[in-house]
Amino acid sequence: MTSERKLILYIAMSLDGYIAKPNDDLEFLSVVAHEGEDYGYAEFVSGIDTVLIGRKTYEKVISMGYEFPHADKEVYVITRQSIPNSGNTKFYSGNLKELVLQLKSQSGKGIYCDGGAEIVHELLKENLIDEFYISIVPILLGEGISLFKQHRPELNLKLSEVKSFDKGLVQLHYKKIFN
Amino acid sequence: MTSERKLILYIAMSLDGYIAKPNDDLEFLSVVAHEGEDYGYAEFVSGIDTVLIGRKTYEKVISMGYEFPHADKEVYVITRQSIPNSGNTKFYSGNLKELVLQLKSQSGKGIYCDGGAEIVHELLKENLIDEFYISIVPILLGEGISLFKQHRPELNLKLSEVKSFDKGLVQLHYKKIFN
Repeated sequence: MTSERKLILYIAMSLDGYIAKPNDDLEFLSVVAHEGEDYGYAEFVSGIDTVLIGRKTYEKVISMGYEFPHADKEVYVITRQSIPNSGNTKFYSGNLKELVLQLKSQSGKGIYCDGGAEIVHELLKENLIDEFYISIVPILLGEGISLFKQHRPELNLKLSEVKSFDKGLVQLHYKKIFN
Repeated sequence: MTSERKLILYIAMSLDGYIAKPNDDLEFLSVVAHEGEDYGYAEFVSGIDTVLIGRKTYEKVISMGYEFPHADKEVYVITRQSIPNSGNTKFYSGNLKELVLQLKSQSGKGIYCDGGAEIVHELLKENLIDEFYISIVPILLGEGISLFKQHRPELNLKLSEVKSFDKGLVQLHYKKIFN
């Protein structure tokens, strides 16, 4: 039994499995916005020191006028393009599995996958995600970008914890079952 | 405020939103099979007197060697074909919305939608489902038949109750918000 660092997906989706409406519209998240309630995010982030994020999701965050909120972490933006690194943000266009295995082989805190759907798909195809925090927002969006794309291997999970909140958000925490 | 009968979807899906693997394979439900645990099904069924089910799902149940388990209910099998009625089972090829509105206008207990994905899609497009019991099975199937198809209107829900069970099944109960 090693104490290998875990790769953790922490993300919100609608009950029908979308992380955004078409055109990366994240407006639906406002139905669970609640003054003073961060849904455990700060606590979660205190347990990680590295962030993996897809380029499109990264650019979406930037375009919304936010500073990318992990200045104290090691951030890897996964991209097919060659983009110069910027401060603690590394643009990585190499093999994703190799990066994750290398990070897991190093000592450190958790590795946070911040989406989006493309990087989640690649990570799941390689069976690299160890834990899942899926927050289900009480809405059927009807269309949009699905968190889970088709054509991945089956993966059994162990439910670790369920929390529900005033605004109707339900946070499910699963761990991969090591067969 | 009327006490109109409610149309209730009661169904299980994987965390990635599938109600079956390809070829209607329901084997994944075995991961939550638990002697003596019916996940509230008997109690739920005691509150309904009418069942709506798609023809393919109905035939799947029959083909699995089960007797269709609602001999004491009024059962509507929704089909595009003309099939003679059989006992309490009516094969309905008319307009689905008209049927549901007619049933809701009558007095009675709840109306249970037993799937599958096609009838759920038609009902959601017409905003006819009033309550949702979605049981999330702790598995990522990777591919299969999605409970929720694309291209439906958005629908806000109110979380009514969350239950979690020993085998890792989480049952979410939502009610439609009447705007």
